[in-house]
Amino acid sequence: SSRSSKSPWQSPYLAPIFKRINYASPGLGAVIDPYLTSPTKAKHFPFYQRLLLDSAGIKKYQSRPPIQALTPWTEIGDCWCAALTESPNHPTSKSKIQMDGRNGRYVQLAIMLGYDIFPDEIVIEHLPIKTTPFPGIAPKDIEIWADFGHLSHKEFASLTAGPRGLKEVELYPPMGLLGTFQYDAVANEKEGRYVQVFRLEYNQNQHDEFWTKKLVVRVKRNWGGENTCLYRVRVHGVPVHPHPELVAEDD
Amino acid sequence: SSRSSKSPWQSPYLAPIFKRINYASPGLGAVIDPYLTSPTKAKHFPFYQRLLLDSAGIKKYQSRPPIQALTPWTEIGDCWCAALTESPNHPTSKSKIQMDGRNGRYVQLAIMLGYDIFPDEIVIEHLPIKTTPFPGIAPKDIEIWADFGHLSHKEFASLTAGPRGLKEVELYPPMGLLGTFQYDAVANEKEGRYVQVFRLEYNQNQHDEFWTKKLVVRVKRNWGGENTCLYRVRVHGVPVHPHPELVAEDD
Amino acid sequence: SSRSSKSPWQSPYLAPIFKRINYASPGLGAVIDPYLTSPTKAKHFPFYQRLLLDSAGIKKYQSRPPIQALTPWTEIGDCWCAALTESPNHPTSKSKIQMDGRNGRYVQLAIMLGYDIFPDEIVIEHLPIKTTPFPGIAPKDIEIWADFGHLSHKEFASLTAGPRGLKEVELYPPMGLLGTFQYDAVANEKEGRYVQVFRLEYNQNQHDEFWTKKLVVRVKRNWGGENTCLYRVRVHGVPVHPHPELVAEDD
Ligand SMILES: [K+]
Ligand SMILES: [K+]
Ligand SMILES: [K+]
Repeated sequence: SSRSSKSPWQSPYLAPIFKRINYASPGLGAVIDPYLTSPTKAKHFPFYQRLLLDSAGIKKYQSRPPIQALTPWTEIGDCWCAALTESPNHPTSKSKIQMDGRNGRYVQLAIMLGYDIFPDEIVIEHLPIKTTPFPGIAPKDIEIWADFGHLSHKEFASLTAGPRGLKEVELYPPMGLLGTFQYDAVANEKEGRYVQVFRLEYNQNQHDEFWTKKLVVRVKRNWGGENTCLYRVRVHGVPVHPHPELVAEDD
Repeated sequence: SSRSSKSPWQSPYLAPIFKRINYASPGLGAVIDPYLTSPTKAKHFPFYQRLLLDSAGIKKYQSRPPIQALTPWTEIGDCWCAALTESPNHPTSKSKIQMDGRNGRYVQLAIMLGYDIFPDEIVIEHLPIKTTPFPGIAPKDIEIWADFGHLSHKEFASLTAGPRGLKEVELYPPMGLLGTFQYDAVANEKEGRYVQVFRLEYNQNQHDEFWTKKLVVRVKRNWGGENTCLYRVRVHGVPVHPHPELVAEDD
Repeated sequence: SSRSSKSPWQSPYLAPIFKRINYASPGLGAVIDPYLTSPTKAKHFPFYQRLLLDSAGIKKYQSRPPIQALTPWTEIGDCWCAALTESPNHPTSKSKIQMDGRNGRYVQLAIMLGYDIFPDEIVIEHLPIKTTPFPGIAPKDIEIWADFGHLSHKEFASLTAGPRGLKEVELYPPMGLLGTFQYDAVANEKEGRYVQVFRLEYNQNQHDEFWTKKLVVRVKRNWGGENTCLYRVRVHGVPVHPHPELVAEDD
């Protein structure tokens, strides 16, 4: 007997192409800043296997590196998973943010861009929730911080002035909070919206001056999983130095 | 002169995303069981090159390994091709199935899953027939067997009882036939249906108890080619131990 | 605060599947002919790093190799970029074409096919212009040459006869111009047509006899960039020796 049926399928594409430059693309020179990025989750090797690796002097216990959070994905596992940190789901303190990703309680991903830009939009991609046994590892509460280390103390201070000034800053390294949002895993599960676009609070008009070359994605809470994983982060913005335009010259 | 035209193109996606977990994904721990999997087709090296490789002690004559049948594909060749076996297109016997894939006349792919599941659906993907010079290597008659080695003799025997019991079994290793179907290469060619979904005979309702951790895909016949190749097999089912659900907790 | 918006996105696919065989696919045996292919662009290493590499005897200054022009792409940078050649945008001479890609002023990519075919259509793919800071590196004026080295002098001469004969030829190696067209980067930018299909001047009817096993893609001008990059070239045609057809035999 031969029965063929059609299982319902999600939107047929994994990685829509935006009509904008993704400045977080490694192909445009974006790299990970390891000093401000959380450690990577260890691989789960069985005990005896770890023993064997240890005795052989091999220390490759890590799963995929943070650069995975900048590259495209097609399958479950094509992501970066941060190591388990202290109570990620129930932060005891919201006011004090520890910038050192290596010891902090939040998951951080720091991206050094290849270009100076006014970032205005962040795209967060996660696997369709219906296709994974671990729905809880999706990011939930996300903050986007920008590094302003290229500014003088005075210039940095000026960014906080006025009604449009930065509301939250950190002094070392000098950073400002450009936006706070939530990745909606329920919309992912129910409506198939696994690619979610978020406008930042700043740089939405031409007078804003919050340009940077380094962005920090801070996941303050996930959807209940033990670890937090990022499938892809994209960064949109306006370049400080305009790119050449396409010239349709006459032949 | 400059003429631009639009060649007709197929549906624009290669690998639709189903709204279900693919338990045959390597990212979920699925691996190939080499003992029950057919040998891989040898690469066609010219004679003198083989001589050279031989003299250098290199034995890498194989084409892509069986894990290719579990991973995504985009191009011709992103598949696993089994070695030529005895008269694959004209099996002399239909009643006797030789389980040892290394000597048998059928192509077998054995998948050890990362989870215990009640498998209920299999997806077979093959390259669009119109894009390949070898249409005959597509699989045709397919059987899905499940390993029940985790059961006692008595438990296994009980699976065959009643009108909904297993109709065909093999005793070593203890396996049962969960479904028989045909991959339709003509529908692939004429209608562009190169991703085909097949419901199994079992586990379609909650009372079925045919759970397993190892599935065998047995291709009994292809579409006339000398070899048989698999681009991707996906496995859908219900997990024995439920996965955590997404909790949309209040903030 | 949490604001989510929808950035407009391009057509959701990167690499449409044509209902034809792509004879330029490496999976079908296509390879690059290095003797007729332009040198590859050097990587931009900082001076001190180059010094270090030099002192270590490492000469890997090249970016991605020409085979990248035959493989699929998803991200910026998944392409082959030719080295800077003499005034690529303002060729001083149009009549004299230097066939040696290593010294010529044009960018050339020579593809040895795995099959003898009557080529009738070329597909040129480039990154969506809106997603790149370097719009000018897209190819513009393109010529397609076919190698007829398998013919005798007399046979080659006969290809030029009559109103449908080759209009432009080169004698060493013996090649003929099968088509001239323009990749439209403006249509790419404005309409999202980044996959463009071009019919060749020849082999559009069954009586044409311009079969070949080697094609040369010659980019005579780009859209104003310093270098020229190719994301993917596909080749459609009719095989000289027909492929087996799919046989839907009765069961
Ligand atoms: K990724
Ligand atoms: K595959
Ligand atoms: K490519």
